[in-house]
Amino acid sequence: MVLGRRYRVGRSVVYSAGVMRVGYVQMRPRFGEVGANLRRVRELIGSERADLWVLPELFNTGYVFTSHDEVRALAEVVPAGDTTHELITMAGELGAHLVAGLAEREGDQIYNAAVAVGPGGMLALYRKVHLFSEEKRWFTPGDTPFPVVPVAGARVGVMICFDHYFPESARTLALQGAEIIAHPSNLVMPGIAQRTMVVRAMENRVFTVTANRVGLEERGGRALRFTGLSQIVAPTGELLARSPEETEEVRVIELDPERSHDKHINPWNDVLADRRPAFYAR
Amino acid sequence: MVLGRRYRVGRSVVYSAGVMRVGYVQMRPRFGEVGANLRRVRELIGSERADLWVLPELFNTGYVFTSHDEVRALAEVVPAGDTTHELITMAGELGAHLVAGLAEREGDQIYNAAVAVGPGGMLALYRKVHLFSEEKRWFTPGDTPFPVVPVAGARVGVMICFDHYFPESARTLALQGAEIIAHPSNLVMPGIAQRTMVVRAMENRVFTVTANRVGLEERGGRALRFTGLSQIVAPTGELLARSPEETEEVRVIELDPERSHDKHINPWNDVLADRRPAFYAR
Repeated sequence: MVLGRRYRVGRSVVYSAGVMRVGYVQMRPRFGEVGANLRRVRELIGSERADLWVLPELFNTGYVFTSHDEVRALAEVVPAGDTTHELITMAGELGAHLVAGLAEREGDQIYNAAVAVGPGGMLALYRKVHLFSEEKRWFTPGDTPFPVVPVAGARVGVMICFDHYFPESARTLALQGAEIIAHPSNLVMPGIAQRTMVVRAMENRVFTVTANRVGLEERGGRALRFTGLSQIVAPTGELLARSPEETEEVRVIELDPERSHDKHINPWNDVLADRRPAFYAR
Repeated sequence: MVLGRRYRVGRSVVYSAGVMRVGYVQMRPRFGEVGANLRRVRELIGSERADLWVLPELFNTGYVFTSHDEVRALAEVVPAGDTTHELITMAGELGAHLVAGLAEREGDQIYNAAVAVGPGGMLALYRKVHLFSEEKRWFTPGDTPFPVVPVAGARVGVMICFDHYFPESARTLALQGAEIIAHPSNLVMPGIAQRTMVVRAMENRVFTVTANRVGLEERGGRALRFTGLSQIVAPTGELLARSPEETEEVRVIELDPERSHDKHINPWNDVLADRRPAFYAR
């Protein structure tokens, strides 16, 4: 944390309480090899430091499931399961918070979920509200609100992958005061989320961190290619980081989450205060 | 209208009732010269044919007002005023519908408005819900719902310029069944609406027609440069037309509005049916 930065937002000079390091891990998970995937995350991070790390959706299990039994066997109870436990241990070791996607089991239900954890333990569990494509075969639609959690003095919102397609997801997080949106992803449509997330950042004046995976996953006669291009976007829509399409990579950006407090795009327009919900259909 | 077209939408073959011609007029209005601007529209359209023409925001008056008296003098009662009358006459002559932006007066209130007209008269009046920048000095915020009107068998929604920044605008039109969004604009932020409108088209699976103006307008010590790049986008996000930044231009695209009926982006996901409003903040 660097204290005492001053910078301009529109016409104002803002005194910033601190600068935060935010990173993502773009990786190629190996299907079903939970331990190896956790170790790979740690290996990729190496000696890099960040206050917040965002990992891909289902980073620990892989994505192309072939049966309900398989999903059930890989899904973990949260926070009791190994992955959440290991992530909390890693958070302690790194002195960081992590937002990571995993398959979660509660009773008979399996969710495509994300956990937010810190050195002190679990902060939030989010269950994906908008399931993509054949995920509907394996997962129950999420039943948890979009969460916003405190990380190193910042407010971090969580949504997963296809939630990006619905502007209501990022909007709901922004209306709850999210300064940074952590967006674990397993994107297969090239270039789509890269565009929508720039617009989500601009229309809500928030930072967004999309952690995508890479690699071809072939299982049971199905093959999906994951498209990389993980990215970090500023509240102005400026691209702060973007990774290649095919290689594993860790990126960290120093940013000031308070830059997202000013919702003005000019002295007259505040992108949240100017909303007029009385005219909006639900 | 061409009858009997068949085409594929996702996995289905759809029988189309017809193909429609949709165009926009990108123009450089002369401030305060209402008659000349109306004539310029007609001149630019020339012998081009379309079922629907979209004109810029405030196409008849120009944009850079310098006093309330000036706005009041240029604003017209709708539909009694000259501009609406002339647009209806033009609609009859062209055998077309038009959506056009103008300054509207009702009693003491002045609105940044748009009319949708056809050969038979007025179809809708819309008053801009999200005013941009110094428009807040001159106009009362809109108090009309986002309208959807029938045009040549299609359902056409209307929003104005900065409404694009708020995803709720296009969403509200799509939820009311809009197949095409007519978007009269006076854009000054280069490249912003061009990006958001591609996302609005994709996230709602609708056609969008953004008619922007061009030219530098200098008045009373203020100067604004309008950024052209008018565009038509398909429900897939594909750019069907885009004009240059600085020149006046008319473009017409033949499209099938029924292509917007299929909200599926894959066999599992329908971008409207998959919405989960119970989890969305207002």
